Amino acid sequence: VRVWVPDQNFADDAQAVAERAGAVLEIDVYDGGAPPLSVPDVEFYVVPYSFSRASLELVAQMKSLRVMQLLTAGYEHALPFMASAPDGVQLCNAHGVHDTSTAELALTLMLASLRGIPDYVRGQDAHEWRAGLRPALADKRVLILGYGSIGKAIERRLLAFEAEPIRVANRARPADDVHGIDELPALLPLADVVVIVVPLNEATRKFVNADFLRQLKGGALVVNVARGGIVDTDALVAELESGRLHAALDVTDPEPPPPDHPLWSAPNLLLSPHSGGNSSAFLPRARAMVRDQLARYVAGEPVENVVRIDRP
Amino acid sequence: VRVWVPDQNFADDAQAVAERAGAVLEIDVYDGGAPPLSVPDVEFYVVPYSFSRASLELVAQMKSLRVMQLLTAGYEHALPFMASAPDGVQLCNAHGVHDTSTAELALTLMLASLRGIPDYVRGQDAHEWRAGLRPALADKRVLILGYGSIGKAIERRLLAFEAEPIRVANRARPADDVHGIDELPALLPLADVVVIVVPLNEATRKFVNADFLRQLKGGALVVNVARGGIVDTDALVAELESGRLHAALDVTDPEPPPPDHPLWSAPNLLLSPHSGGNSSAFLPRARAMVRDQLARYVAGEPVENVVRIDRP
Repeated sequence: VRVWVPDQNFADDAQAVAERAGAVLEIDVYDGGAPPLSVPDVEFYVVPYSFSRASLELVAQMKSLRVMQLLTAGYEHALPFMASAPDGVQLCNAHGVHDTSTAELALTLMLASLRGIPDYVRGQDAHEWRAGLRPALADKRVLILGYGSIGKAIERRLLAFEAEPIRVANRARPADDVHGIDELPALLPLADVVVIVVPLNEATRKFVNADFLRQLKGGALVVNVARGGIVDTDALVAELESGRLHAALDVTDPEPPPPDHPLWSAPNLLLSPHSGGNSSAFLPRARAMVRDQLARYVAGEPVENVVRIDRP
Repeated sequence: VRVWVPDQNFADDAQAVAERAGAVLEIDVYDGGAPPLSVPDVEFYVVPYSFSRASLELVAQMKSLRVMQLLTAGYEHALPFMASAPDGVQLCNAHGVHDTSTAELALTLMLASLRGIPDYVRGQDAHEWRAGLRPALADKRVLILGYGSIGKAIERRLLAFEAEPIRVANRARPADDVHGIDELPALLPLADVVVIVVPLNEATRKFVNADFLRQLKGGALVVNVARGGIVDTDALVAELESGRLHAALDVTDPEPPPPDHPLWSAPNLLLSPHSGGNSSAFLPRARAMVRDQLARYVAGEPVENVVRIDRP
């Protein structure tokens, strides 16, 4: 079995999996640069953690490919390339691998915004001690828009901070105290913070628009760690510039904002550079996931997190 | 029974306590400005939330005083005034009231420092998207120096972030997995983060000195939400300027730093202006504590959090 992995850490893990299973794996490292000569032979392909076209275009030449394992939770970027992959290839996403890092950044953005860190940083640069009462996260109602695995990871952290989560998913699940998006008109006016963790698709594009934002109370904080396209940027900028709302965005539309974009200088806005998943928490969790998937494959068991590919 | 409270919120609460107990309270609001005429009659005094001398000097004239309730956890500032208080006065601190707000700020400082928020804020001001891998709090070993009520509140939050606490108190309590300070030489080299939550006294003054800091590994983060005097500022500045350590300080020595002090421009340092307790989390918890203490007093039960007063 020929395996491609993106760096030496994953290669060491693959070797360990092979030894434990008494199997033999041929392991090549492909980091998105010059591809190994074994393109026609690779069966299990861990795609480098980037959105590069080259690493996806190679699939058309991978005649032996059985499993294509992404390191991203999103997979929209890979779908257009699957039409040229061999029949029966399984595309797997990295479900759960980014939860810890992304939930951590969501809390970091909330806490930094509420407790005044951006103002303190600017105060420090001006040698100013900007003391004063600040909002705490404790006692706040936080609406989690998207109650999947990242939403649940955010909730666990919110509870430790004595904040009150409001769970919202596509469909209500009253037994789990999850509200449906049809209930948003009643819920938005209650929220002190809204944190966006839904995937981007045609139903969610610009879902957080002027009408959505208008229903939030004055002083509410909007946090986006999902995709920039879910928020109507112009509508948000208008609410920030009026001083009515606050925001913290890890993702923007356009991303990154061009140098003269109003997002850079909007008041009450904290920007981070799409760093939700880009932390030290990623690698150990990605390696554990790939070890598990490879062990399943070597043992002839079904791999997990297979995503649906609609072929033309 | 004559009661002094620092604002109308506390006055409303006191009235509600009286009604529930079927008692009659005479309630005056004293916020640290001009004192009410009832000085000789006040029995239960909730001292305004400040360190003003005037509010403490009044004690000498409070001939009926039985309970002096502070809104701070520290009480060193009040002790010098107790010699002139009537015999048998009980001085009570606000044990636990600040835990939520202070633990929240400790986590805010850790998360903001690790995930790069100060750099992002400066990037935003420069219209720069400073993407890159950052340390996460997840998987980090966090040494909690001072395992009291704030230390425990910090620990609860750390566990939600998948970090690993190392508990250190004055004396080891092996049954609770609490290490003694004599074990620090073995523990400091393991810590990714040290968070300081010990009280300031003669044993802790400059406890975090050059020798303590030298034992930390390179890249470690020092967080102080206790008192500035616990850290040897010069020794810390030297470690910051060499680039070996990072720090986030809510308290400094001197505090605030004078305009030309090296703390303002030390690299890898996040400063916040002694805002640990100064958040919206304070008032509801302070009110709940005073309601409880007043209800005990009215019912003839012992009040809580009585601190020891050593009289000359």
